[in-house]
Amino acid sequence: MTQTIQAAFYRGDRTFTVETAEAAGPAAGEVSIRIAYCGICGTDMHVYHGNMDARVGFERVIGHEMSGVVAAVGDGVTGFAEGQKVVVRPLDHCGDCPACNAGHQHICHNLKFLGLDTNGAMQEIWTVPSHTVHLLPDDMRLDHAALIEPVAVACHDVRMSNLQAGEDVLVIGGGPIGMLCAMVARDAGGNVVVSEVNEARLAIAEKLGFDTVNPAKADLAAAIQERTGGKGADVVFEVSGSQPGVDAMTACAATRARIVMVAIHAQKPQIDLFQFFWRELQMVGVRVYEPQDYDKAISIVASGGVDAETFITDVSPLADIQKAFEQLDSSPTALKSLIKVGDFA
Amino acid sequence: MTQTIQAAFYRGDRTFTVETAEAAGPAAGEVSIRIAYCGICGTDMHVYHGNMDARVGFERVIGHEMSGVVAAVGDGVTGFAEGQKVVVRPLDHCGDCPACNAGHQHICHNLKFLGLDTNGAMQEIWTVPSHTVHLLPDDMRLDHAALIEPVAVACHDVRMSNLQAGEDVLVIGGGPIGMLCAMVARDAGGNVVVSEVNEARLAIAEKLGFDTVNPAKADLAAAIQERTGGKGADVVFEVSGSQPGVDAMTACAATRARIVMVAIHAQKPQIDLFQFFWRELQMVGVRVYEPQDYDKAISIVASGGVDAETFITDVSPLADIQKAFEQLDSSPTALKSLIKVGDFA
Ligand SMILES: [Zn+2]
Ligand SMILES: [Zn+2]
Ligand SMILES: [Zn+2]
Ligand SMILES: [Zn+2]
Repeated sequence: MTQTIQAAFYRGDRTFTVETAEAAGPAAGEVSIRIAYCGICGTDMHVYHGNMDARVGFERVIGHEMSGVVAAVGDGVTGFAEGQKVVVRPLDHCGDCPACNAGHQHICHNLKFLGLDTNGAMQEIWTVPSHTVHLLPDDMRLDHAALIEPVAVACHDVRMSNLQAGEDVLVIGGGPIGMLCAMVARDAGGNVVVSEVNEARLAIAEKLGFDTVNPAKADLAAAIQERTGGKGADVVFEVSGSQPGVDAMTACAATRARIVMVAIHAQKPQIDLFQFFWRELQMVGVRVYEPQDYDKAISIVASGGVDAETFITDVSPLADIQKAFEQLDSSPTALKSLIKVGDFA
Repeated sequence: MTQTIQAAFYRGDRTFTVETAEAAGPAAGEVSIRIAYCGICGTDMHVYHGNMDARVGFERVIGHEMSGVVAAVGDGVTGFAEGQKVVVRPLDHCGDCPACNAGHQHICHNLKFLGLDTNGAMQEIWTVPSHTVHLLPDDMRLDHAALIEPVAVACHDVRMSNLQAGEDVLVIGGGPIGMLCAMVARDAGGNVVVSEVNEARLAIAEKLGFDTVNPAKADLAAAIQERTGGKGADVVFEVSGSQPGVDAMTACAATRARIVMVAIHAQKPQIDLFQFFWRELQMVGVRVYEPQDYDKAISIVASGGVDAETFITDVSPLADIQKAFEQLDSSPTALKSLIKVGDFA
């Protein structure tokens, strides 16, 4: 069974075209999903900027921060039925590499990221391996559900930090991922401070209920020491991707603090290893998510632990995807732009 | 009760003088120890080089890698009796700082290191707080027991790495501390490779039974990948204190590897944070030891898990301490020089 659908193709040169395409039905082991919403990820902006052309090519439908309902299930697939609300954990692993063999499928040496290495969710029907699909509660709003993928990133980051309720948390960098880390850390009982230099983002952080510091205007380390009685932050999320952020992460850390390296540093910053020695600091690298992080993200979005209304700053129809990327690219205050792919929801 | 003893004083300018001094008896809560042997630590060499003059002054008896027997116990001290073999864990904490309050007394914000911030063990009788004293088995050789302090450093490093039996271990840097990490990691069941550029040290590592790589002559990362079937090292000890060592630690690491930062980097090296993201690497800073690390070190030295005969490369009487420092400073192959402080043992 094939079906005629609308799909947005990345054609290079900061251009998407919305075209008619054919969606094949699910093969054995697959699930076809009618897409409701698909958020624009930072990675998608990288594609838009042309930074990933070699990887994605010019025939690609991107998108992975989606929500939808099951349209059809392939042979041998159990546990899913037409009409159920679902999200996809867009990782397909090889099953036979050192990482997979060690049980770390999400960092498989040959990992395929659905929506980059394969076609993604910026189309009306998306067909994926059934092992990537998570069921949602019946009453979950599908626009809110499109946040589950980025929330799962934050859930992974917080889980890897081993944050305990009552601990002091510093989030360095108040962009979308930093804000989600802050919200998930607060949901886990952390006392969260957000450090950010951009005043528009600081205002959003405050609207979301966080104490903030602008390290361009105040001594961040002194502020953290004062808040914590000279102890420092027990958990630090470095989300800024900057050398000043890397400097701050060690300067603000308590003895045996856990520093979570959320930002992807393409350069090699200088790190104050003396502080690692002096305070027995720990740093943990984090990448995407594992199934339990999706479970947690679903429950946090369901419970309102993430302020979806504030976080979703724009919703555009699929036909306007080009404009949505252009606007997000030029907005200093946007957090999450959603594309409404199907109008059934 | 005071007693006339011989003691070695650091007088500045790379000079020790052995002089007659008065040893006061133990005050309440203290234990006086007749010193048998005291090893020369890398820190002691820093003192000798004049790098710590501001901290130690010119009236200081240094030394902390000691063994001895109880000479007298002060009021209120229980659990120790004259003649028992002991070692000292040379850390005195404040009891009321964020680190102490969190149970991390060994990284107390106001930590006093005995033998640097107070007089140490390069004297015939050393008096210390009783909480720092560990009992030894009756049949332990006191020269071997002088290795317990540096072995405890390695036990702490290995414990903090969470090394599991059968895991692949890379030790970057084959000096005395690197060798001890390698021996303790092997004792814990690790498959250990030592990376070292100095041929004399490589020969010692091989004599101690380790596979070695000289990264100046071979591609270290390729060698580790080949040994481990493309997986990489599960645990990496960075003991080189060099930028190439820091580069190698990420290049050789398996997914979710634990990198233990043993070296004290006074500079801020550049670190490949992308690899931390890509492989979800973890890095842990380590400093000195906790009581359980001393317990473990005593049992490893007692069982022969550390090759003390190979590791102790020189023993000199206290009268020759000046010559012992000079020789150690100029020797490329020395591992551990002991000062025989008392000749009763
Ligand atoms: Zn994403
Ligand atoms: Zn794999
Ligand atoms: Zn030492
Ligand atoms: Zn303290």
